Amino acid sequence: MATKKKKEESIILITNDDGVTAPGIRNLVEAVKDLGRVVVVAPDKPQSGMGHAITIGSPLRMSALHIYEGVETWSTSGTPVDCVKLAVDKILHRKPDICLSGINHGANHSINVIYSGTMSAAIEASIENIPSIGFSLLDLSVEADFAGAKKYARKIVQQVLSIKKIDKHFCLNVNIPNISESLIKGIKICKQAYAKYEEDFDERRDPGGRKYYWLTGEFVNFDKSRDTDVWALKNNYVSVVPVQFDLTNYVLKQQLEKNWNH
Amino acid sequence: MATKKKKEESIILITNDDGVTAPGIRNLVEAVKDLGRVVVVAPDKPQSGMGHAITIGSPLRMSALHIYEGVETWSTSGTPVDCVKLAVDKILHRKPDICLSGINHGANHSINVIYSGTMSAAIEASIENIPSIGFSLLDLSVEADFAGAKKYARKIVQQVLSIKKIDKHFCLNVNIPNISESLIKGIKICKQAYAKYEEDFDERRDPGGRKYYWLTGEFVNFDKSRDTDVWALKNNYVSVVPVQFDLTNYVLKQQLEKNWNH
Repeated sequence: MATKKKKEESIILITNDDGVTAPGIRNLVEAVKDLGRVVVVAPDKPQSGMGHAITIGSPLRMSALHIYEGVETWSTSGTPVDCVKLAVDKILHRKPDICLSGINHGANHSINVIYSGTMSAAIEASIENIPSIGFSLLDLSVEADFAGAKKYARKIVQQVLSIKKIDKHFCLNVNIPNISESLIKGIKICKQAYAKYEEDFDERRDPGGRKYYWLTGEFVNFDKSRDTDVWALKNNYVSVVPVQFDLTNYVLKQQLEKNWNH
Repeated sequence: MATKKKKEESIILITNDDGVTAPGIRNLVEAVKDLGRVVVVAPDKPQSGMGHAITIGSPLRMSALHIYEGVETWSTSGTPVDCVKLAVDKILHRKPDICLSGINHGANHSINVIYSGTMSAAIEASIENIPSIGFSLLDLSVEADFAGAKKYARKIVQQVLSIKKIDKHFCLNVNIPNISESLIKGIKICKQAYAKYEEDFDERRDPGGRKYYWLTGEFVNFDKSRDTDVWALKNNYVSVVPVQFDLTNYVLKQQLEKNWNH
């Protein structure tokens, strides 16, 4: 009869795109600190909207910080995706059991998943066979109330850590509505809504008279179905979208195969 | 009886991630110049590996250039995705009929689609309902031979422009093998291979003794199926992968719905 071994402590890698000192990552560390050995590796400056950028034209720096009590913490000069790569290769020297990203200050539902540094870090982990979850709160403010986000982040991390046979590319995009904790109705598994930004660059002139442009835009949801993340959030649910990195459009593939292969 | 109108000239937007003066974009302009009104809007510096990054923390600049005879050309201080947004909103003041990105110097098959600025520009266009194609040649050199790439780029653009009822989010990832034109066997419609980079940061010390890290890595293909882009390229085909921006993992969604929704 085999001896029952004590379950080893899970290694929980935490990163984000708002920078290592952002309130969102502090709240995420607090929410899951006792669920395993937490290691933070995050950008030294805000990296919102960085998408899946990696740093290839310049080298990267890392610094050890002492900002979260009892938690090994590093800042890097890289993007969120760089942070995941550095963490695995240069800090942990192994794959963590789970990678968490966030809690982002602002929504990453629908099309935002594509632009989001938070979600790109999570997707990078899933490419590396590390189960991962990105968390975002629908409140851009640095004084946002993270109570609901913390509660659900903890709950979801516990649930994922307890899965016996996890999909090797398991990745979730979790968004938390900007309402008080008691009003959140629960969790809803969703698909990514088809929504986008209608761009409108704000044109200005510098003191020398030369034009420059600020990216602005209005969010428009074209997807009226009820199983989307946008619908869930509007209806006071935490939205959970399982995410993949295979971008193949199989429907279009089948159509083109009929005519194009020769 | 309706009068038969002369078909209006197609507007072809061209961008890339290697910068507006890269040989690859020059070759793409030459390849399709007579197929419509070509407008080039591309980054003023190399932006490889930028993924789907957008510029939100700083404003953008644009400059008109005169480098491609008879072709309206702009450089911007932004990422490839910014270029598409600026082109539609501030230069064309309408959607082009097609958006082409490239020809990239280096492969964008398999997982590279996620990191690629070239493909992110194409995907951005498809989000905006603009049919788009990203082209990449499997040769990093600035002295690469673009003859085969040009021939197939032209052929594919003509084929796409001739589609009567095009999918509104039509997007292709086209890679051209690094062999002489006469050896290319044709076009193969493929899926994105599951392949990734095994990272290995190159650790060095600056003159002050402080460590810094260069991202390096070895490409490893885990996908042995014969309908992947990696297989097609190895077998001397031009690989064409239809691409989508809905990242929902529907298989995992169904699994989680059973247990998680409450």
